[in-house]
Amino acid sequence: MEVANTIDAARRAVKQARKQGKGIGLVPTMGALHRGHVSLIEAAARQCEFVVVSLFVNPTQFGPGEDFNKYPRPLDQDLVICRAHGVDLVFAPTAQEMYGRQNLTWVDVEKLTEPLCGRFRPGHFRGVATVCAKLFNVVLPDRAFFGQKDAQQVAVIRRMVTDLDMPLEIVVCPTVREADGLAMSSRNQYLTAQQRGQACTIYRALKHCEDRIGQGIRDAGLLVAAVAEVLRQVPGVEIQYVSIVDAETLQPVDPVSGEVLVAVAVKLGSTRLIDNIVVDAGHS
Amino acid sequence: MEVANTIDAARRAVKQARKQGKGIGLVPTMGALHRGHVSLIEAAARQCEFVVVSLFVNPTQFGPGEDFNKYPRPLDQDLVICRAHGVDLVFAPTAQEMYGRQNLTWVDVEKLTEPLCGRFRPGHFRGVATVCAKLFNVVLPDRAFFGQKDAQQVAVIRRMVTDLDMPLEIVVCPTVREADGLAMSSRNQYLTAQQRGQACTIYRALKHCEDRIGQGIRDAGLLVAAVAEVLRQVPGVEIQYVSIVDAETLQPVDPVSGEVLVAVAVKLGSTRLIDNIVVDAGHS
Repeated sequence: MEVANTIDAARRAVKQARKQGKGIGLVPTMGALHRGHVSLIEAAARQCEFVVVSLFVNPTQFGPGEDFNKYPRPLDQDLVICRAHGVDLVFAPTAQEMYGRQNLTWVDVEKLTEPLCGRFRPGHFRGVATVCAKLFNVVLPDRAFFGQKDAQQVAVIRRMVTDLDMPLEIVVCPTVREADGLAMSSRNQYLTAQQRGQACTIYRALKHCEDRIGQGIRDAGLLVAAVAEVLRQVPGVEIQYVSIVDAETLQPVDPVSGEVLVAVAVKLGSTRLIDNIVVDAGHS
Repeated sequence: MEVANTIDAARRAVKQARKQGKGIGLVPTMGALHRGHVSLIEAAARQCEFVVVSLFVNPTQFGPGEDFNKYPRPLDQDLVICRAHGVDLVFAPTAQEMYGRQNLTWVDVEKLTEPLCGRFRPGHFRGVATVCAKLFNVVLPDRAFFGQKDAQQVAVIRRMVTDLDMPLEIVVCPTVREADGLAMSSRNQYLTAQQRGQACTIYRALKHCEDRIGQGIRDAGLLVAAVAEVLRQVPGVEIQYVSIVDAETLQPVDPVSGEVLVAVAVKLGSTRLIDNIVVDAGHS
């Protein structure tokens, strides 16, 4: 496994693989790899002969007061995980390498970046889209792999790729969960033991919504209220949003029909957690 | 010479050339080709084994009330010119092909897009950067060729390529001029015979500025006034701007020193014309 810290070194390694006729798969991550990331790496390895994992805590997707500084950076452990799962190239640039002089160029995806997390993290998706454009231009992958847990990110990146005619395919892999249902996230390690115990309520609230839809409820207001009611069983939880939206456009759907995304963001103490499920509500 | 009207067809043709080990050169144009474009095609042919010319009047770079509808589209004549100059592939998509559904994704280059033409054509450079990103992603050229006449466009595209790590080189070719000094432009054909006769004053004003710098004048205000004085010899001319700026950052330079861009935009009747020269003012 090669580890490249510079754009040039990454390009050289990928070019070599490309010359050998290998398909290139990219798993863009901020490191602190967990089983969710591993599932992306495994999917990439099944679909591509040459697997690249990028490890980069991207400063431009964090807002002021967010957790950029405390975000975990266990590089050695991440490299062990990559090596164990047959990764061919790790691209782990510094912020200086990626944004060597003041960045003036931004990729903005309108509309899709406004609802849900966009309301609470202004500029976040602009940073995500921009760094993904950069990573795609460095690695030129045939496929890039993202987790369904970050559903809005997936919608934004998919749209960017389509709108800008980027020559790659976006592959979305299912959310990987702990035994109690909590979605895998590098931020779970911020939780106290008590918060960790309570955090599984998020998934329970989402499944409750799925049950209610299964029982025939289609009123979005009622369904959102049902999710919030379950979430509020956690003392001190701060609900940022509970939304039922079209999975592609992220626009509210009411009455609920077709494939919908039920998405939630909460804060437990200072830790912000998001989760979602896709439910097929059928057509009346 | 192949003519591709779809993104897929263009990609197939380029892929074929790439497989044969050919370097790819792209000349992005809005058609209505003149000798300025031909000089770009010739430069591309010298530096690349496979030359692609795109012909696309890009709607997203025109503002309301601008000349999108009347912009000349002499496709057959453009194809004759391309064929005569050894172009390998013409990519001539429809607007429907390039923006098939509502475009939500924009490439924004801050700061460089604000002065000069940016003040008079809001959104213009966002449209230019976005369509160039798309064309680069379709053709994946090793080099793309632009004319110095559009100096601000060159600065914006160069910066986009650097900031987003796009894997290509931007090559800038000198402005090609008519015998009387008028910079070649597809918009020159809008001019009446009288306006055409007067239009050479623009280059004369720029050369006058160069002379004044050569005589040791470094006060930007004086130099700008000298350019404006020459321009005002044309009855009814509307001066949009006369600016002396750093050629890379496009920021005003006063006193003038180093390599500066002397840039002008005027309207003759309803026709908007731009021109510029780069002058080395040395260092005091």
